[in-house]
This record gives sequence, structure tokens and C-alpha cells, in this order.
Amino acid sequence: MSNIRLGILGATGVVGEEMMNIIKEKSIKYKSLKLLASKKSAGSVVDFDDKKLIIEELSEDSFDDLDILLVAVSSGLSRKYSPIAVKKGVTIIDNSSAFRLEEDVPLVVPEVNGDDIDNHKGIIANPNCSTIIALTALNKLNEFAGINRMIVSTYQAVSGAGAKGLSELQEQISNLENNEEIKNEAFQHQIAYNLIPHIGPFNEEGYSEEEMKMQNEGRKILHNPSLKVNCTCVRVPVFRSHSESITIEMDKEITVEKAKEIIAGSPGVKLVDDLENNIYPMPLDTSNQDLIYVGRIRKDISKEDDKSLTLWCCGDQIRKGAATNAVQILEKVIEKKAYRN
Amino acid sequence: MSNIRLGILGATGVVGEEMMNIIKEKSIKYKSLKLLASKKSAGSVVDFDDKKLIIEELSEDSFDDLDILLVAVSSGLSRKYSPIAVKKGVTIIDNSSAFRLEEDVPLVVPEVNGDDIDNHKGIIANPNCSTIIALTALNKLNEFAGINRMIVSTYQAVSGAGAKGLSELQEQISNLENNEEIKNEAFQHQIAYNLIPHIGPFNEEGYSEEEMKMQNEGRKILHNPSLKVNCTCVRVPVFRSHSESITIEMDKEITVEKAKEIIAGSPGVKLVDDLENNIYPMPLDTSNQDLIYVGRIRKDISKEDDKSLTLWCCGDQIRKGAATNAVQILEKVIEKKAYRN
Repeated sequence: MSNIRLGILGATGVVGEEMMNIIKEKSIKYKSLKLLASKKSAGSVVDFDDKKLIIEELSEDSFDDLDILLVAVSSGLSRKYSPIAVKKGVTIIDNSSAFRLEEDVPLVVPEVNGDDIDNHKGIIANPNCSTIIALTALNKLNEFAGINRMIVSTYQAVSGAGAKGLSELQEQISNLENNEEIKNEAFQHQIAYNLIPHIGPFNEEGYSEEEMKMQNEGRKILHNPSLKVNCTCVRVPVFRSHSESITIEMDKEITVEKAKEIIAGSPGVKLVDDLENNIYPMPLDTSNQDLIYVGRIRKDISKEDDKSLTLWCCGDQIRKGAATNAVQILEKVIEKKAYRN
Repeated sequence: MSNIRLGILGATGVVGEEMMNIIKEKSIKYKSLKLLASKKSAGSVVDFDDKKLIIEELSEDSFDDLDILLVAVSSGLSRKYSPIAVKKGVTIIDNSSAFRLEEDVPLVVPEVNGDDIDNHKGIIANPNCSTIIALTALNKLNEFAGINRMIVSTYQAVSGAGAKGLSELQEQISNLENNEEIKNEAFQHQIAYNLIPHIGPFNEEGYSEEEMKMQNEGRKILHNPSLKVNCTCVRVPVFRSHSESITIEMDKEITVEKAKEIIAGSPGVKLVDDLENNIYPMPLDTSNQDLIYVGRIRKDISKEDDKSLTLWCCGDQIRKGAATNAVQILEKVIEKKAYRN
């Protein structure tokens, strides 16, 4: 019998709900489960694991009876409440970007750097979705040949903007079908039948926040401060899987055959690369499951040496890109007894 | 008064119809206009330029009374009929890939290498849509700083598969709305809410035909046989504009400011790069017009030198990607009197 008093902050959001699904699927043992959300959702009843759970309103007093809290709210809310919970001895697994780059906060993809959890001071951060997907795909290639440069173009699903992103695509499609006016609230522009090369605010150099995450978080997760990443992030009218076109330059020669062998043996990854049979990763196929599909693996023909590869990968943004990765961190925290009990 | 006897082969296809629109928009002068198509469409009447034109069935005898023929059919059909027409003295402007890489066939983007028309031997080829869009965007940057490597990820509209591509996306969306079964005929897999990294057959190295076109056609158009291009082509659920995420490595240093100045002065191109106001190229905005929109221009932060840039461009696949470019070639052919009369 587990003694863990578990909590989920943001239990009514897309990621929070998926965290609950995954806790159940993985049969995570806990003593109690507390669901926290904003005032708006407080009081509603959730059926979970043959029990009825009442959503409680988040306050500074929400954390006294918790050991581990999964946080799936905005970085603003996390920045306010996570330190309060930490002071009360709670171990935080935070899906927001609030603390990801802070020095004493491990940023963890369990397949890549699970042992970084050992050094946490109360907060463990879950990386950005497109970063998790890319690094899960590339981790073993990096171990083999040392990636030093990545050029990435993403094709990101609307689920990255949460429930309002999912409904906005669906509503725009329906409204257009019925010749009704459409509204843009979750995104800057119409996303139905369109592409928006803008995810997060732009910096002075013209890169979006989402684009910089791939380099900044990638360096931290791979323990490679000199990793260079050039990323272009684009929102596409797909519901819940992100796709990425990635070119990597490495320190060492690698054949396509070797790369496929490494991908096939990578944890959390499925090699999906059978061109003769029209089989390659696609976002429809990777939705509602946890593996990152990797395929279209080929030599980068724009480089004369044999140290550069190009590939294509897809993964569910809500699951491995967010909720699954967080619950995998939770499993590691429990396994390592890296919480206060 | 013009003495040109003009023809369009494939007049009932998406590109052929758009060629007619553009001939009218540009007030191209001609003496007669002959519309050719397969038996299936022959006999139908088209309203054009205040006249009623009857679609004629393609045969080996279709070419006797023509001076210039725009070809907008499959490469198989073009390979069969274009040489017959050339033998009869007709100048061919061919939108198919049949002759693009043949030595005595100019492959022309008028803004880039219009003078290559001078050397034609009867056939002038119109490049592949994503190649036209990329090279129109990059031409003046290349003139300034010599592009030697391109890394491109495309986001290609369904119009690239013609009328059946356009209707397949629309039907799949409607069928999914109504919980009806969907069919895949134009594409290998469902395209609604999905991405398909597969355009044209794959070669032994794992590149698709569409991906190789960017390098092979790019080298010919830019007169740079050592240009290296690594391309990933992806079909996206967008109707008629292609988008491309492009990183270029050049021979010479260039600032972002200089690059923007060059793009702003490039023929056929519009600089659309005002991040503060959420303004950047998007496929919805570039549809049904002729300019290639270029934006998100920034230094490639994965390279230490200042010779590498990253940018994002969009252009209408049916217009500048096919029909407009062909009609621009027609204009050049007329201007240069590069036909038999």
C-alpha cells in the first residue's frame, strides 16, 4: 500500500485530465488523490478509479496534505503557487515553463536524463512538448554520435493551446462548412486550412519563444551547453500530435542503417520507416498513445561528410509531449523515493 | 493585333483553367485560342473573354494550327504529345516534369533566369511548384551572397494533386463532420487533420521525387551545379498555397537588415515581416494571387558565422507555382519573339 498523497493542479484542463488517465493506465499507487483547479471548476465531481472526486479550489492552503503535486496550469499560476507548495514539503512536477531553466530545477525526459531527478530541490520541470518529442527521438543517436547542430521545422497540433485550441479548430471548420463567421481566440489568425508560423512571443532576433525552447531546454536535458539549434515552429490544423522535420549534424560518421538500428532500440520510440509500403510517421497514427514514431531517416545530402542525417518524427502532444512525460517523472520520483516521505 | 495562335493542353484541369484566367488578367494578345483536353471533356463549351470556346479532343493532329502551346497535363501525356507538336513547329511551355532536366530544355522562373528561354529548341519547361516558390523567394539573396546549401521543409497544399486533391480534403472534412466513412484516392492516407511526408515516389536514398526536384531543378535554374539541397516535403491540409521553412548557407556574410532590404526589392516577392503586429506569410493570405510572401527572416543561430539565414515563405501553388509562372514564360516568349512566326 502506497503512502503517497498525490495532487493534480489544473485537473480540469486537457493535460490535467490526461494525467489522470495515465495515472490510471499505469496503475500508479497512491494513498489519496487531490484534484485542484480554479474557482470556476471547484465543486464539480469527477469519476475516477471507481471513486467520486470533488474538484477543490486552489488556495495557499491547498498543499498541507500533499507529498507530490503534478502542476498543469499556466506558468504564471505555477510561479505563484509552486514555491508555496515546496515550502510545505511538497515535491512539484511542473508542466509549465515557469522554472524549466532555473539552475536547481531538473528538466527531465525520463528516457534521456531521468537521473537528473536526484538533484531536485522541490521542483522538477516537464519540458516543452516539441522538445520532449525531438529529444526522445534523438537521444540514442546523440549518445552514439554527439549531435552538435539541429535544424528543426515543426508542424504543431492545436492541442498545444489546450482545450480552447482543440475547440477553435473544430468550430472554425464547422463554421466554414456552414458559411458562418469564424472567430480567432486561441490563435492569432484562422488555423482551419491555414498555417501560423508563430508560437509564443518573438524575441529581438526574430525567434519565437517556442523556437528558443528547443535550444535552451535541449542543452539542459542533453547536458550539452554548446548544442546549436535553429528551429522554426509552425501551428498546423491537426488536433493532437506534433510532427517535426529534423536535420542533425553530429561529431561522428553514422550510416542510415546504423541510425535505424539505434532508433529501433531507443526507449519510448518506434521506428516507422517502410517507404515501399507507404509507412512513415503521421500525426493521426501517433495520437492517443505514448510512443514517438521516427522515420524518413536518410543521409543529409546537403553535407559532403557522413555525419549528418535528416528524419521525421511525430508524437502525441498531450500525452508524451506533456501528461505522459510528467507521469513518467512521477514514477521515477516514486521509484527513487525522491519525495519527502 | 497579335498573330499568335495559342493553345492550352489540359484546359479543363485546375492549372489549365487558371492559365486561362491569367491570360485574361494579363490581357495576353492572341489571334486564336485552342483548348485541348482528353476525350472525356471534349465538346464542352467554355465561356472565355466574351467568346464561347469548344474544348477539342487531343490527337496527333491537334497541333497544325498552333504557334505556342501551354501544356498542363501529366508528364506521361506531355512526353507523348509535346515532341509531336514541336515537330510541327509549335513552341511548348510545359508544366509537367517530363523534360525539365533535359539539356536543351530551358527550365525557367522568369524573375530568375528568363533569358534561358533564348536557347530553347521547342520546349520550355515550367519548374515544380515548390521549387518556383523557393527560388522566386531566394533569387536576389543568391545573387547577393551565393547560396551553396539549402535545408528546406515544405508544407504543401492539396492543390498540388490537382482538382482531386482539392475535393478530397473538402470531402474528408465533410464526411468526418457527418460521421461518414472517408476515402483516400488522391493521397496515400487521410489528409484531413493529418500530415503526409510523402510526395512522389521515393528513391533508394529515401528521398521523394518532390524532395529531389528542389535540388535538381534548383541547380539548373540558378546555374549552380554544386548547389546542395536537403529537402523534406510534406502534404498538409491547406487548400492552395505552399509554405516552406528554409535555411540557407551562403558564400558571404549578410545581415538580417540587408536580407530584408533585398527581399523587399525582389521581383515577384513581397516582404511580409512585421512580428510586432503578428504579420508574417500564411498560406491563406497568399492564395489567389501571384506574389511569394517572405518573412520570419532571421540569422541562423545554429551557425557561428553570419553567412546563414532562416526564413519562411508562402505562395499560391496553382498560380505562381504553376499557371502564372507558365503564362509569365509565355509573355517572355512573345516579348522575345521566341516562337516560329
